[in-house]
Amino acid sequence: MLDYGIRIWSDDDFKIEKGKIVVNYGKKPAIIDIVKDIRDEGYKGPLLIRFPHLIKEQIDLLFKAFKKSMKEYGYQGGFNALFPLKVNQFPNFVIPLMEMTKGIPYGLEAGSKPELIIAMAYNNPGSPIMVNGFKDKEMISLGFIAAKMGHDITLTIEGLNELETILTVAKEMGKPYPKIGLRIRLHSSGIGIWAKSGGINSKFGLTSSELIEAMNMLKNSNMLEYFTMIHFHIGSQISEISPLKKALREAGNIHAELYKMGAHNLKSIDLGGGLAVEYAQHDGLSQRHYTLEEYASDVVFLLKTIAHNKHVPDPDIYLEAGRFVAAKHAVLVAPVLELFSQEYDQRELQLKPKNPPLIDELYELYNLMNEKNAIEYLHDSLDHMESLLTLFDLGYIDLLDRSNTEILVHLIIKKAVDLLKHKKYDEILNIQNMIQEKYLLNCSFFQSLPDYWGLGQTFPVTPLDRLNEKPTRSASLWDITCDSDGEIAFDIRKPLFLHDVDINKEEYFLGFFLVGAYQEILGMQHNLFTHPTEFSVVFDDEGNYEITNLLEAQNILDILDDLDYDIKDIERKLKQYIEESDYISDDKRKDVLGRLYLYLSENAYLKTIVSYKDE
Amino acid sequence: MLDYGIRIWSDDDFKIEKGKIVVNYGKKPAIIDIVKDIRDEGYKGPLLIRFPHLIKEQIDLLFKAFKKSMKEYGYQGGFNALFPLKVNQFPNFVIPLMEMTKGIPYGLEAGSKPELIIAMAYNNPGSPIMVNGFKDKEMISLGFIAAKMGHDITLTIEGLNELETILTVAKEMGKPYPKIGLRIRLHSSGIGIWAKSGGINSKFGLTSSELIEAMNMLKNSNMLEYFTMIHFHIGSQISEISPLKKALREAGNIHAELYKMGAHNLKSIDLGGGLAVEYAQHDGLSQRHYTLEEYASDVVFLLKTIAHNKHVPDPDIYLEAGRFVAAKHAVLVAPVLELFSQEYDQRELQLKPKNPPLIDELYELYNLMNEKNAIEYLHDSLDHMESLLTLFDLGYIDLLDRSNTEILVHLIIKKAVDLLKHKKYDEILNIQNMIQEKYLLNCSFFQSLPDYWGLGQTFPVTPLDRLNEKPTRSASLWDITCDSDGEIAFDIRKPLFLHDVDINKEEYFLGFFLVGAYQEILGMQHNLFTHPTEFSVVFDDEGNYEITNLLEAQNILDILDDLDYDIKDIERKLKQYIEESDYISDDKRKDVLGRLYLYLSENAYLKTIVSYKDE
Repeated sequence: MLDYGIRIWSDDDFKIEKGKIVVNYGKKPAIIDIVKDIRDEGYKGPLLIRFPHLIKEQIDLLFKAFKKSMKEYGYQGGFNALFPLKVNQFPNFVIPLMEMTKGIPYGLEAGSKPELIIAMAYNNPGSPIMVNGFKDKEMISLGFIAAKMGHDITLTIEGLNELETILTVAKEMGKPYPKIGLRIRLHSSGIGIWAKSGGINSKFGLTSSELIEAMNMLKNSNMLEYFTMIHFHIGSQISEISPLKKALREAGNIHAELYKMGAHNLKSIDLGGGLAVEYAQHDGLSQRHYTLEEYASDVVFLLKTIAHNKHVPDPDIYLEAGRFVAAKHAVLVAPVLELFSQEYDQRELQLKPKNPPLIDELYELYNLMNEKNAIEYLHDSLDHMESLLTLFDLGYIDLLDRSNTEILVHLIIKKAVDLLKHKKYDEILNIQNMIQEKYLLNCSFFQSLPDYWGLGQTFPVTPLDRLNEKPTRSASLWDITCDSDGEIAFDIRKPLFLHDVDINKEEYFLGFFLVGAYQEILGMQHNLFTHPTEFSVVFDDEGNYEITNLLEAQNILDILDDLDYDIKDIERKLKQYIEESDYISDDKRKDVLGRLYLYLSENAYLKTIVSYKDE
Repeated sequence: MLDYGIRIWSDDDFKIEKGKIVVNYGKKPAIIDIVKDIRDEGYKGPLLIRFPHLIKEQIDLLFKAFKKSMKEYGYQGGFNALFPLKVNQFPNFVIPLMEMTKGIPYGLEAGSKPELIIAMAYNNPGSPIMVNGFKDKEMISLGFIAAKMGHDITLTIEGLNELETILTVAKEMGKPYPKIGLRIRLHSSGIGIWAKSGGINSKFGLTSSELIEAMNMLKNSNMLEYFTMIHFHIGSQISEISPLKKALREAGNIHAELYKMGAHNLKSIDLGGGLAVEYAQHDGLSQRHYTLEEYASDVVFLLKTIAHNKHVPDPDIYLEAGRFVAAKHAVLVAPVLELFSQEYDQRELQLKPKNPPLIDELYELYNLMNEKNAIEYLHDSLDHMESLLTLFDLGYIDLLDRSNTEILVHLIIKKAVDLLKHKKYDEILNIQNMIQEKYLLNCSFFQSLPDYWGLGQTFPVTPLDRLNEKPTRSASLWDITCDSDGEIAFDIRKPLFLHDVDINKEEYFLGFFLVGAYQEILGMQHNLFTHPTEFSVVFDDEGNYEITNLLEAQNILDILDDLDYDIKDIERKLKQYIEESDYISDDKRKDVLGRLYLYLSENAYLKTIVSYKDE
């Protein structure tokens, strides 16, 4: 895996050139050069780099694919898309997104009051706003205010109570009203009819009986003309196309039936999200088994067919593909702080004149090991190690014996790898697993890759340079939290090999790709590590890049302030300790205080002050 | 499960009296009365209630158990404990904790720079401070500053590089030095020798060879006298005692060996955390298979035995039990917003003069169902439903048919439950699973119960009142995020039954218990729901309670500010829309703006403004 699967996951957005990962845009800058520039300006620790051109690219792909299919099938409805804010609410994502979608029917979807406020402030006039999720009277009133502001807003109701509240607020607040959407509860989307992620017990949406009831309520209050859309969502990151096709058949028929029952302004279907991103880094582990073109074509064809069969107009299509639009735009760069090698050398052995018999045996296994007996001797040595460690626990051997055991077993494993290197890959992998190198990364997986912790989702990871050198170390990745879950272990099913670097002499950076969806807002502040320093890389017409929207990670005092500590109190206490200490001479008190303030003004990550090489 | 397992998880801290959950302290106030008081003052949405007396109780239990065992075995070493800040860094937890531990050897453990600053500011003078986790030169220098301030601080090193840095900083900054601890890498703690959570590939600690190397480095720089402690940690929430006993044997022998090699100030062993909390709510699902007394007794006895056998002094014991100290003190209260019943009534059926044959069959199954054939007919009806839903998708039946299908199948399930209610519990549970009632809760599981999302950890949950009424509804719990993972589904292995309430007429609150450890800092801001309103309940000498440290949940503008939005820009844009809108008459603009500002000043949860009943 010399290319780290870049041909699988990058869609040519990133390429390897001269051993470096480059952005395949403009003058193709290497990410590592961008990183070094920013570090030279004093920004250390992990970095989140945004590439807004990759947002634009994804949106263009979406519109192109749907327009093409619509043309092909003579589809009469329109195509619109929405960005579900829950996927990324950060201003340096949302504001450029809105700037680059001026003039096309692309809007924001909100699932909570603060998200709705973002949409009301930043959505492009004329573009749609969609409000999903559970709503109280206040949130519905906010929707009415948005309509009064002139926004093209649709409130999708999740239950009949919400519809009742809309009818009440309509009376109180008067026209203009927002449009009304109904979320339908599908039976088909889960695996098995009672599955959690969909089906009749799904968290969201109205049953058929409730749809009929909703129609009656709308009719009785003369509001049927505001009912314009049905909505469904079959789940995030769908790996196969077939559940979508089932859901489309169901939704298309529900649309047609409701239209025929008198909902003549029901002209739109919102398909929700689910369009997957390919996170796989290894052959055979693909997470998306369809293309965008197939997706668009299936949607258009099925909706067209049903509308035709039921003699209703082709509905306008709304798509809420969030992950697809956002994932690519952000890359997390983590500096490697240290390699925790167990690079034992035979010279470190301190064999005694008289050793425990099992240690002598280990030594013999090491010396007599050859290609033929390597696996057998390896297993014998692991067995001996178990016994020796137990002898230590029971007080029969001493620490030096234990140390000799560790060293001998590691030497034996290394020798086995060397002897077997021309053999079957799988066998070597299993042994590599035992001598994995531990790479300590200056970041928090809880903060920056929460889906790894919560869902076991892995993200493509690669060194940013040296890609013309063969990586030799089976690697496990550690973050700097005090949590054993903060580790991406070496996995023989998807092995990661990295380079053997001496961090005291040279820098080494890893990039985690496709982290632009969900990871920022789900980021956890475990051990008080907060959002990393972020910036955007934008390209001018000549292809030169510029760094914009730089936002530094919070410093320590800000972090404590956010936790609601009284910062003044903390400063006062720390100062008092220094002033009253018997261990600091009077002429040094100012120095110590100054040093302390320097630390308080930096972020929580490691090696944030002096340049790496100076350490 | 009429008592919601309170006898399993509450340790008598909470009891049921007159149908309400009461705090078993002082005058035993009911939690629901406390909640109603605070809501009457205008604090709506989810609430996090802290009970500081339960922190004190846990610490007292710890010290009592260890002192008792030490006395019993004639143990010569001392007992100290530390609170690992990563478990809960919030000021309304930490500051009272430090106040209530004045005068006892109880300190704070830090795993990052901001946590170390908290410890330096708030640790009681004379009590220990422990620094674990990966450290750079800045963090080590902070440790030296703490020592200069007069703190009793120990830096536990995780790798030889850190020790090198300590030796460098010692030269630069001079005395007093912090104490030095070495984290040992155990072979025994994981399940299997190469297991992730422990063993030789563990994220943390030094191997035997590295320990010997560290001893040499300390000797050579005349720093051996500062080496005072070894540390290990076998993982969080350990369910069995046996891995601890293995680890103790290993650590006890390492301690003795290092002492005999010349580390004569090595007088302490830090056992880390791991002491479990009983989260189980159902019989047979216990998560802790030992008592505190057994734990303390095993620790003291094993360390005593090893020290005796190896002729070294009994080491001082340090314990970092964080979950045990913090979990109990906090309760999350979530108001129920709505019940999404599918309470179909036969009258809702709108059978046609001529129905699809399968619907007629469903109707027949419903009418002819009896106790004997109930299960068979139920299965038949589910099968028919599948077929009918497919017919709808293919355009063969209409929405009214589909609605009739849903209603009939629900009526059949209900009838089956009724017919079989005297039958085997398991069978009924399976059917209950199909007609679970959906309770929508005004909270975010991502924000308030992140371990549920990440680890599948469940927390004891109970209604706060009505506990003298039999709960009849099989319940699934939904939060208000737009995420299908925000659901605690009905689980027949640990069923939850709740009361049938009409939320429009009466309030209903659920309490989630034991949420005081990890849940706050790991809380995710999915959909921009932030930390709930919190307050502490403290008791005076007469047993009356008082509400203190009330901190309201962030309002919408603050939330957006924290995301680094330009709030002024948002306000300006919203105002401009209102001022320039053609849809608002001039005399109404101020009204609309005022209403908008009201919403902006409230938190993101639902029903935060008007009192519940007025809605």
